[in-house]
Formats: sequence, C-alpha cells, structure tokens
Amino acid sequence: MKTSTPIDTLRLDDDQDSLVIIDQTLLPTEICYLALQSQAEIWEAIQQLRVRGAPAIGIAAAYGIYLAVKHSTAGDQGAFLKEFQQASQYLASARPTAVNLFWALQRMENVITSQMEVEIPQLVAALRSEADAILAEDIRTNLAIGEHALSLLQPGDGLLTHCNAGGLATARYGTATAPIYLGQERGYAFKVFADETRPLLQGARLTTFELAQAGVDVTLICDNMAASVMQNGWVQAVLVGCDRVAANGDTANKIGTLGVAVLAHQFGIPFYVCAPSSTLDLATATGQLIPIEERDPQEIYRKWYQKPMAPEQGVKFYNPAFDITPAKYISAIISEYGIARPPFTTSLRAMLAN
Amino acid sequence: MKTSTPIDTLRLDDDQDSLVIIDQTLLPTEICYLALQSQAEIWEAIQQLRVRGAPAIGIAAAYGIYLAVKHSTAGDQGAFLKEFQQASQYLASARPTAVNLFWALQRMENVITSQMEVEIPQLVAALRSEADAILAEDIRTNLAIGEHALSLLQPGDGLLTHCNAGGLATARYGTATAPIYLGQERGYAFKVFADETRPLLQGARLTTFELAQAGVDVTLICDNMAASVMQNGWVQAVLVGCDRVAANGDTANKIGTLGVAVLAHQFGIPFYVCAPSSTLDLATATGQLIPIEERDPQEIYRKWYQKPMAPEQGVKFYNPAFDITPAKYISAIISEYGIARPPFTTSLRAMLAN
Repeated sequence: MKTSTPIDTLRLDDDQDSLVIIDQTLLPTEICYLALQSQAEIWEAIQQLRVRGAPAIGIAAAYGIYLAVKHSTAGDQGAFLKEFQQASQYLASARPTAVNLFWALQRMENVITSQMEVEIPQLVAALRSEADAILAEDIRTNLAIGEHALSLLQPGDGLLTHCNAGGLATARYGTATAPIYLGQERGYAFKVFADETRPLLQGARLTTFELAQAGVDVTLICDNMAASVMQNGWVQAVLVGCDRVAANGDTANKIGTLGVAVLAHQFGIPFYVCAPSSTLDLATATGQLIPIEERDPQEIYRKWYQKPMAPEQGVKFYNPAFDITPAKYISAIISEYGIARPPFTTSLRAMLAN
Repeated sequence: MKTSTPIDTLRLDDDQDSLVIIDQTLLPTEICYLALQSQAEIWEAIQQLRVRGAPAIGIAAAYGIYLAVKHSTAGDQGAFLKEFQQASQYLASARPTAVNLFWALQRMENVITSQMEVEIPQLVAALRSEADAILAEDIRTNLAIGEHALSLLQPGDGLLTHCNAGGLATARYGTATAPIYLGQERGYAFKVFADETRPLLQGARLTTFELAQAGVDVTLICDNMAASVMQNGWVQAVLVGCDRVAANGDTANKIGTLGVAVLAHQFGIPFYVCAPSSTLDLATATGQLIPIEERDPQEIYRKWYQKPMAPEQGVKFYNPAFDITPAKYISAIISEYGIARPPFTTSLRAMLAN
C-alpha cells in the first residue's frame, strides 16, 4: 500500500536493546523518537500515553517483556519464568482497560511455558521472534480489517471517527483508519470528520495529523459537534477502534465513543467497531465487567492550557478514560476474520471459530 | 435570595456613561471589569464573548444603544430615530443567533417610535428607563423560571447542564441555574454535572466557577463524558438555556446541546429548556430557519493552548457556535410564565397568551 502512514509508531532498535517509539504526547508540533530500555521507561511510556492504542500497547508490551528478560542471569528455566512473570505483572499494571496488553503478555508467556525444556538463550530468541510475529501480524490484521470494512462503504461517503484508531495506535495502517487508507489509494474520496477527543485530544493531534499526511480530506470538530455534523447529513458511517470487546459485543473504547454510538443510532447511521481479534475478550461476558481506568483530573482543566480552565477549589472532576458502548448500538464488529453482525454472542464466536 | 451569584455580570456605571461588564473571557483565573463606552467597544465585547449568554447580550445591547444616542445632537426626533437605527443595526451585527439581541434593540426602538412627539432629552431618559426595566425584568424572570423548574425536580437529583446558562449569562441567577440556586437555598442537595463545553469552555470556566462560589456540589466533565454519566444513572434531569426557540419548539443553543438532548432521550432522562419569553421567537416557524453562527477555527485548536493542538496545514475545521435541538427531544420549555409541554406549537402560544 503506497499511502502508508509516514511514521513508525514503534520498532525494536537496530541494536536490539531498546524499543524506539514516537512520543505521541508531543504530536503534532514535535516529532520526537524515544529509545526505551528499562522496564520503568516502558511502563511510563504506556501509562503516560507516549505509546497508546490497544494494538500498539500490545506490541510495546511484547518487546518490553523481551527486553526485560533478555539479559537474564537466571540459573534455570523455572527461575527465568519467575523473572518473566514478575516483569509481566509490572507491565500489565500500566493500563487496566485495553485487553491487548494482557493478551500480548500472555502470548509471550506461552512461548516459555510451552517449551520449558529449551535453554534460556533459545527462549530469549523465541521471545524476540514472538514479538516480531505480533508486530507483523498486526500489520496484516489491519489490512484485512481495512478490506472488510471498505466493503461496507461507498465512494464519497462521509465518515466520522473518534479518538485515534489510526496508524499511530497500531504498528501501521490503524484499525478504523485502514479502510480510509485503502479507500484513499483506490480513489474513494472519503470525507472524514475527526472528533478532537477530549481531554487528551488524540483526534486533533494524531488522527488529523496522520490522515492529512496521507492526503485524506479530514475535518476536525469538537466532540460536541458530532451531533450537528450527523444532523446535517454529512456522515454515512462511523468507524471506531476498541480497547476490548466483551463476548456479547459490548465494547470498551475511548471516552466519548458511547455518545457517538447513541447519536449514530438516533440518526440512522451505521456504527462500525474495528476490532482485531486480539481485542475480542470472549472470556468477559459483558461490558459491565470491563474495568474503566480513571485518570488525573488535571488532564481536563490544566494539562495543555496556558492557565487553569476551571477553579481548582470547590469543584469536583470525573475523568474516565473509556466508556462502554452496549452492543445494541453497534451495527457490526469487524475483525481480520470478517464482519460480525448482531447478535454478537453467537456471531463473534462463529467468526473466531472459522 | 441569599445564594446569589457573587459577581455582577453587567451594570450601568455610576457616571451613567459606560457599561461595566466582567470580562468573561478571563474567568476563572482573572476577575477583571471593563468599562465600555463606545459602540465599537460594546460591539467587540459581544462579538468576542466578553459578555455572553442570550439574556445578558440583550441587556448589554439595551444599555449599549442608550449610550450610543445619549449625547445625540440630532436636530429633531426623526434625525434622532435615524441615528438610533444606525447604531442599532451595528450592534445587531455582533452575533446572529441569539434573538435577545434583536428583541432588546426592538424594544428600545419602540420607546422612540411610540412617542415621536416627545423632546429628545426625554426620549433619552425613557431609553435609560427601558434598559433598566429590561435588566430588572430579567432578574424577576429568572427567579420565576427557577420556581417553575424547581417544581419538576426532586431533592438529591443529579442534574446535567451544558455551557453557561447561569448568572453570568443573565443579569443574575441565570436561567438553567436558577432552580439550582433556589434548590441550594432550600436544601435540595442537587449534584450538578457541568459539561466543559468546547471550544470556549463556558461550562468549565463559568458554570463551575459560579456554582462553586455558591457552594453547590458541582462536577466538571468533558462534553464526551455526558453519555457515561447518564449511563451510570447519575443524572435525573438535564437543564439548559437557549438562544432562540422557534414556534414549533426547536431550540437553538450552544453547540453540543443537540447531542446532550439525544442522549437524554435515549437514556430516558427529561430534557428541560429554560427560556425567558424574550428568547421565544414565535415569528420563526422552525429551527431550520435560525441562522447558525460559525466562528474562527483557531478557537478549536489554538486559542487556549500552549501550542497548536492540530496541524495547521492540510486539515479543515468546522466550528459552529450553536446547534438546533428538534422539539421532539425536549420534555418541556420553561419560561417565566410557566411550563410548556409538547406539542409546543400550541403550548408556547398558549403560555405567552396567558
């Protein structure tokens, strides 16, 4: 695909001793790469959203756990596994909502537990291969999601997206943006509306940035303008990513997704969740069981501003990072394996079984 | 009422030669009063939202037009009227959506046209009296709206409001906040959620500020968190102000109101519009006929921030200041005369006829 995002979200450095990420907290005004080596650096980068987006967090965790045990001096495989699990628990504590973090760490752990008879240097090499595989699969997955999602869209469609489920949230191409990039390559002339996505402005800072770089027609709006844009008839489909999908289709995604889904439902606009299979958490029955991360209130009234935008005394704040969109508002969940329609309790299992 | 807002939104100065306003663009970090004398200063203050909120704009325009013609040297009443009308057209051009601006200017013009035989100094005095009357009526109106709205609420209710329809949007007490202040005085213990209201953050900067000053339990959220707060069961009623209500009940209010109304509808929460009769524009049949002001895109990605929060090249912006909430999402429209229920085409006329 020619219209790839121009920027590597993350990669293992050539010296294989650090994870190189673009610091997404500084975009779009500064393009700054960080070489992370210690577990603490990687934990901080995930927690502070320097690397963010469920798939990208999974890949970062995979390389992070590889780097954590690469120079292990464990005397035997059992000690090595303990060392691995300790590092894994630490990385898993960085963010609670996205399931990819746990999924990637579990997949890495399986590399060890499935071959405990193998020597430690070979286990380390196998961990490296597994992390590389997770990254490579992510790219293939996103292209497959893009093809499936594109089949639901028409040339000239107005598309609305929330937060950044773009190339910057994955290794490349993104999930919700994959059909946009594919459509761009094929002359679909989509008109994309990007919600700015308060409080951390991933839509304003990241989605408009990467879509503009690719030449896509993109219009930035405040989150509270989505209703107006839909009422004007400018939106033919909503595309969002997700951090975790429960077995019944309930979807955890960036705060504000629920509101967009309700609006789409009310205005008769299809609402599509682009969900790599790594985000499908069929072990969790419903969205009510997904923990929601609450973050520092200063993100709301202080972080980016020249001065505080609310009184710091006498006011409470509520800053959930995610919300749960009930399955009833979702038209389809699109993974690399195809398109699942309601009722999701059966269609998601069927999709994964094929 | 004891729990009044502690700050005068606007008043005529003691020297009667300037309109004193609190500069709302500097709140909550700076409390700065401006004495406006020239028409250009008053026009700029309205256009730049230093004074804002439909009722407050009306009052500012009334005093503004009085100051504009106070020192008139017109030779006769006809010339005086022409001078008045010229100044009036200029002030009316500051903002197109709120009907109170035109309503107040028309009411002031009627003072002249109804008594063209009176000498100019007496006409000037009558204009001053009319502006004073508009301000005094605004306060009485808000208290009446507060009583009517309070009758729809229960002690302990969670209330969500959008933008600032508070004391700062009026001479005192506000429209949507009037029942909150009355309830506070009477021990209702409301829990108020204030949408921050992007891009100009009137909820964060003004609503939390004035409610916290009055000791109200107020929680600031980003606009895109309203859906979550409703889903959590924390909201028993939504209260908003308005800039103009059409004859069928369609309501123009701050951008984002439509989204909140759709959410309230979906979650089964009553959605109340607090509308002084000066905002009821029965000459406009439906909301589609209300002009929507579009403002500078820099308000979205640059205005308050330390650095631009979106790429300035290759990205489009859409920044409507208002949206139209169709009547079907509105549970009741509350004016100083009472509570109008659907169908509004008949109930609004009946309410005004009483």
